[in-house]
This record gives sequence, C-alpha cells and structure tokens, in this order.
Amino acid sequence: MANEETLILDGSAKSKEIQEEIKAEVEQLKEEEGVVPGLSIIFVGDNPASASYIKLQQRVCSKVGIDSEVVDLPEDISQEDLLAELDKLNNDDSVNGILIQLPLPDHIDEKKVIGSINPEKDLDAFHPYNIGELVIDGDAYVPCTPEGVMALIDKYDIDVKGKDVTVVGHSNIVGKPMALLLLNRNATVSVCHIDTKDTASYTKNSDIVVVAAGVPNLITADMVKEGAIVIDVGINQVDGKIVGDVDFENVKEKAAAITPVPGGAGPMTIAMLLKDTVRSCKNMLNK
Amino acid sequence: MANEETLILDGSAKSKEIQEEIKAEVEQLKEEEGVVPGLSIIFVGDNPASASYIKLQQRVCSKVGIDSEVVDLPEDISQEDLLAELDKLNNDDSVNGILIQLPLPDHIDEKKVIGSINPEKDLDAFHPYNIGELVIDGDAYVPCTPEGVMALIDKYDIDVKGKDVTVVGHSNIVGKPMALLLLNRNATVSVCHIDTKDTASYTKNSDIVVVAAGVPNLITADMVKEGAIVIDVGINQVDGKIVGDVDFENVKEKAAAITPVPGGAGPMTIAMLLKDTVRSCKNMLNK
Repeated sequence: MANEETLILDGSAKSKEIQEEIKAEVEQLKEEEGVVPGLSIIFVGDNPASASYIKLQQRVCSKVGIDSEVVDLPEDISQEDLLAELDKLNNDDSVNGILIQLPLPDHIDEKKVIGSINPEKDLDAFHPYNIGELVIDGDAYVPCTPEGVMALIDKYDIDVKGKDVTVVGHSNIVGKPMALLLLNRNATVSVCHIDTKDTASYTKNSDIVVVAAGVPNLITADMVKEGAIVIDVGINQVDGKIVGDVDFENVKEKAAAITPVPGGAGPMTIAMLLKDTVRSCKNMLNK
Repeated sequence: MANEETLILDGSAKSKEIQEEIKAEVEQLKEEEGVVPGLSIIFVGDNPASASYIKLQQRVCSKVGIDSEVVDLPEDISQEDLLAELDKLNNDDSVNGILIQLPLPDHIDEKKVIGSINPEKDLDAFHPYNIGELVIDGDAYVPCTPEGVMALIDKYDIDVKGKDVTVVGHSNIVGKPMALLLLNRNATVSVCHIDTKDTASYTKNSDIVVVAAGVPNLITADMVKEGAIVIDVGINQVDGKIVGDVDFENVKEKAAAITPVPGGAGPMTIAMLLKDTVRSCKNMLNK
C-alpha cells in the first residue's frame, strides 16, 4: 500500500535551523563576551575516512563561527606524548570541546586516553563520567549521534513517552546511549543486536524503530508496523552510494515517518557537536 | 498445569556458598598481608528501615571477618560536615568500601555527595564514573542488586546470550543497570515500566523476566511464558509478610525456574557487597 502521506524527517533542514540558531549565539558571545567558541580535534595517523569527516566538521564549524583546529599527530606517537597533547588542550581556556578521532593505533591504550579527557570538554561523551550521567538522567554531554536523533524527534514534536520503541544495535556510542535516552523519556525500549533470535518480532510491534547496525537493507518493509516512525542511523557505502540500514524505498510505503540517508540522522549529529561546543563555552564563561 | 520440576533459584544457599568463599579469602588476606577488609556505612538520621538493613549488613560482614563501621550522623548535619566525613573515609587506607545510605535529608545535595565518593571505594556504584563503566562494559563496581542477580544466574549456569529478556522497572539502581548487564552479555533486552502500554506483551514472549518494580503481584501467571525463568527483585511488606513483585505460587506452576522472596535476589545483594569489599581491599593492596 502506497502511503503518500509519509513524513520525511528532514535532518538536513532541521540541522540548518539549529546551525542558524547557533550562529546567532556565537555572534552574541563574540559581541558581548569577546570570546569565540573553540573545538579541538585530535587526529592520530591519517585514515582517509576520518580525515574527510574531520574536514566536514571543520567546514560546518567555520560556517557558524566556531574556531576549530586539528591536532595532527603521527601514527607512531607514544602514549605519553599523546597524553601530554591532550593535557595541553584540557588546560587551554580557549578550547571548549575536545574530540578524539577513534580508533587510536593499537599501541595506544584507548581507555586510558579517553579517561584522561577533561569531562567538561568531552563533547562526544566518551568519558565514563559523562556516560554514567546519562544512565542516571543527569545533564552532562551525551554522544552526538543519539543526541541528534532525540533532537530530530523533538523538532517534529514526537512524544516517545509510553511508546514501544526498538533500538537495533547495541554499540557503546549509539545503541546503548540511544536506549538510555529513550528510557529516560519513559519510552518502553527493546534493544536488538546480532545475537537477537528474531529482530522482526520486536520491530513489527514497535511504534518507533531506531536502527544503528551498519548493515544495508537490514530493516525491510515486512519488519515494520503500518504507521511506524523509522529512524535510520546507519551509514554504509554500497556501489559508491551512501545508504542506511533501512530499505528506504519500501519501508517508506508503510511508515508514517522516516529519515532518509543521507540527510537524516547524519546532519543532526554535526548540529549537536556545534550546540555542545557553544554550551561548553557558556559553561566555562560562567565559572 | 502443575510443574513439579520447577527449579527454585535458591539465593540464600548460593549467597552462603559465596560467603564461605569470601571468609576463606578474608582469612588468607589476614594471614598473608596482615590486613582486614573494612567497610564504612554513612548513615544520616535514623530511618528505622535503614537502621535494620544496616544491622543486617554488619552482621553478615562480621560472619565473614570483614570490619564494618557505621558513621552515624545527625539528620541536621550540614552538607559541608557530611562531605568532610566522607573525605576522611575516602582517604583512610583501612576503609575499602564506603556506602552512603540513601535517601539523604532534603537539605543535602545528594548528587554532590555521591559525586564526592572515591570511585574506587564506591561499592554501590552510585558515582557516575562507575555507572558509566557499566555502559561501556568496563570493570568497575556495579550496583550490588543487579550484580547479585547476574551472580545467581551464573551460579545456575543460565546462559543469557541471545535470550529474550524483559526487565520490569527502570530505576537507576536496579532496572537500568540490570538491563545494561544483560545487554553486555548479549541478551535481547526490553525494559518495561509504569508508562509501558502492555507489559504482558513483553513478559509473555520472554525467556527470562527480571522484575524490580516494587508492586506486589504485578507479574501474574498469565503474563509468563511456559518454561520461563523468573527473577523477582521486589521486596514489599504485605500484611506483615515480605513478598516480591511476582505472584510466586501461581507463576511457579508455569516457570522453569523462579526466585523466592525472601531468599532469592536479596541474599545475593549482600553477598556482592562482601565480594566487592574484598575486591577493593585487594585492589588497594596492589597499588
């Protein structure tokens, strides 16, 4: 059954709205406080996919007036030197946010590095302190991707309280924090993953399905309830094209609302990064 | 249909087994290292239920040779004085574990106090750092009740990987950490709570149901699948009798295995407290 009324959840448009708001805030901070929010990205090695994502982040920062710098470090940097670089950023008042591009090389103790970020500048919420605040519904930073999904849900006035929601994927940076954010808003949340016996038995009964598995076409039309809301966080490259985890063309015929890929969750992630940088800048000013 | 084969998950017996193991470890620590593990319990005010629970904790500590002390503080203690008391314990090498009996009086900033416990002595895993480690499947302390449920599951060699599990209740100290522990073992986890539309639709399809809602008779036989494993974390007082959240007599006829209340999850919680005190003592010796 074709559904001509399907709402396309337009992450690109909503992200631009947020970017405009942030741009105005950044201008105000400059005029009234004489400060420019600053983001530092630690990039060890030269993975091309990472390099291209960082370029995108920097471009969007520059559009809204946020200062960004990449701390380029060689693949063979010692753990000690990496921690020293991190420490400089932790203590630099002009740096409001610190991102560490993962993965780090094998000889580096990733856990140790993450645990050494100043939690107040840890916009990705990699530090256990921040992720713990998420469990207890505190007000620390949360990972930008699930944060962006919630912001998109809010932009479309979707109320999740009491809704049956399935999250597909249980990664530390998307699936688990996504489930916690939804649970904190009193959705009924199920988390499926690679070891789930029958993912369809969950998704078919869900009002909202959030997919972050990294598997193209994982969610097909027969797995989705008529009138469901489907949010696709997957980003996969198939035949040189970017696709999500959802069979968009067919699922959109059944769903009441759906995110496209690209143009859905992705742009919202970047918007959250900007928003959190400004938030950190304001927090640091108020200290 | 009567099920004469239902396995009663005997938390009391398993807790005693663990206590015997801990007693031996404590003796060994005393002989070989000359140390006695120490637990301190901060108790503000005089809530009778708290007082009686603390008495129980101390009795069990004493049975296995762990030193325990209660830091009795007046209801009207200032936040500053409370933090000073906590700081003494944080820095006292003879104190391996610190418990703060909640709730604290209204004039105390509970979040601030919890955030001030030394995470390495925070056996209840109230501190965001510890709870964050749980999200990322780290190796910090986890709240004793869900830890005890996992230990009970392990004692009976129940494999949760790929199992459909419903957790009923989404509190910060039981429901959410319980869900995370199960998710980290690759169970498929659904979390139901007061805003869930139809809890039975989840529990009826679950291989394992863990209930921590604090509502007597919440889970009835019609809500449970034939052959399910039912773990009741509820502790309610009804007509002077302690009961759980599960209609034990009727659910036991359908379940393959079930915990009694009392004698199920409760004694396992205490066993975990002892285990974690010894763990902390060993960690501190190895520093």
